[in-house]
Amino acid sequence: MCEPELRARAMALPAGRGHKGMSSVTCQISISLDGFVAGPNQSVEDPIGEGGMRLHEWVFKTDSWRRQHGLEGGERTVDSEVVDEIVQGVGAYVMGRKMFGGGDGVWDETWMGWWGEEPPFHAPVFVLTHHPREPLSMQGGTTFTFVTDGIESALEQARTAADGREVAISGGASAVRQYLAAGMLDELYLHIVPIVLRAGERLLENVGEPIVEPVKVVASPAVTHVKYRVVH
Amino acid sequence: MCEPELRARAMALPAGRGHKGMSSVTCQISISLDGFVAGPNQSVEDPIGEGGMRLHEWVFKTDSWRRQHGLEGGERTVDSEVVDEIVQGVGAYVMGRKMFGGGDGVWDETWMGWWGEEPPFHAPVFVLTHHPREPLSMQGGTTFTFVTDGIESALEQARTAADGREVAISGGASAVRQYLAAGMLDELYLHIVPIVLRAGERLLENVGEPIVEPVKVVASPAVTHVKYRVVH
Repeated sequence: MCEPELRARAMALPAGRGHKGMSSVTCQISISLDGFVAGPNQSVEDPIGEGGMRLHEWVFKTDSWRRQHGLEGGERTVDSEVVDEIVQGVGAYVMGRKMFGGGDGVWDETWMGWWGEEPPFHAPVFVLTHHPREPLSMQGGTTFTFVTDGIESALEQARTAADGREVAISGGASAVRQYLAAGMLDELYLHIVPIVLRAGERLLENVGEPIVEPVKVVASPAVTHVKYRVVH
Repeated sequence: MCEPELRARAMALPAGRGHKGMSSVTCQISISLDGFVAGPNQSVEDPIGEGGMRLHEWVFKTDSWRRQHGLEGGERTVDSEVVDEIVQGVGAYVMGRKMFGGGDGVWDETWMGWWGEEPPFHAPVFVLTHHPREPLSMQGGTTFTFVTDGIESALEQARTAADGREVAISGGASAVRQYLAAGMLDELYLHIVPIVLRAGERLLENVGEPIVEPVKVVASPAVTHVKYRVVH
């Protein structure tokens, strides 16, 4: 059987049209074919678990990711366009404490995140935590604000900071699940990576039964990107 | 954010070109966003489990499925084209006993399958079972042959019957998993349905770590079809 030689390209589906005026709350995340967003045995040393880095290889190959991180080179592919797209329009981020890193419990204030002096967010980031900490201002416009009074408060603060632009839930899985389960997520952009991890952390578990519809699909040889709108 | 108004369409990826001469062994199956191909609590009365029928609604809506089952009407969509495509080129089928139905144990020979006098296969079908039974010839060219000596034997018989055309593993999940785990599957065409079933039977569990690559993606508002080639 021979397929026609079309190039990979983006398809936008009719349901993709039209968004409400308020900040959309979005999430984009890489997921294995068997549903895992991190490998097994996550630890401080291995924060995305065994084999979990394989979920992200497609990103690191793109020129877009390298440019966002101050590096040269990389490939220009349809995946690059997706990587460009996912940072466009984001006015603020919310992330879980594990994603910010630095271990559990009371903060070690020497920990400033995984990303060095100039993190790639260039926007306000709200970190969900049970332990208070003063805000951090980093180079390049990234600020980390530590929110101890729950996901609704973090979202509200992020919406205010985003001033009409998108609020992106950066991860990890637990933060995304909480927002999805609470009906606060508007858009879930899955990058379906053709690997079978066999074990690890599932994204779509204990999230209730959200109603979603695909609004955009981008296919590449490395990964299939499907953007879902959450129907409220 | 406004997406351009493209129509849903098929993308074939470069890796899709080129197939070897021998019968490909294929499987196409509908899967929920959280990885289930049947709902929980499967039974003789409810063979695809609670909520499992929601996986197949997209099929029943198509004119192709209705025509294949001798019915008029239905919608003509990109999903119809997928439904047409998945029966083209198939020379023989293999299915598990649960998919053929009729309960466990020694055969009740009055059970002739779920599909009535003229099943929609129109080809030889090999049914995996532990209990011998004489072959059945149905109207419209479907024959059911009951194979008691394992999945390799069933595949070999199906290949012979298919005479160079595809052998399709029809399901259920257990049969697909066995062929995938044994490295005998060449192509897995997933119809990713935007529903969260929360529980049921997973497809990609206990299948080892197959290496797959997407070769074709078809997007529609109802379902995202991704065809994977299994790399041997």
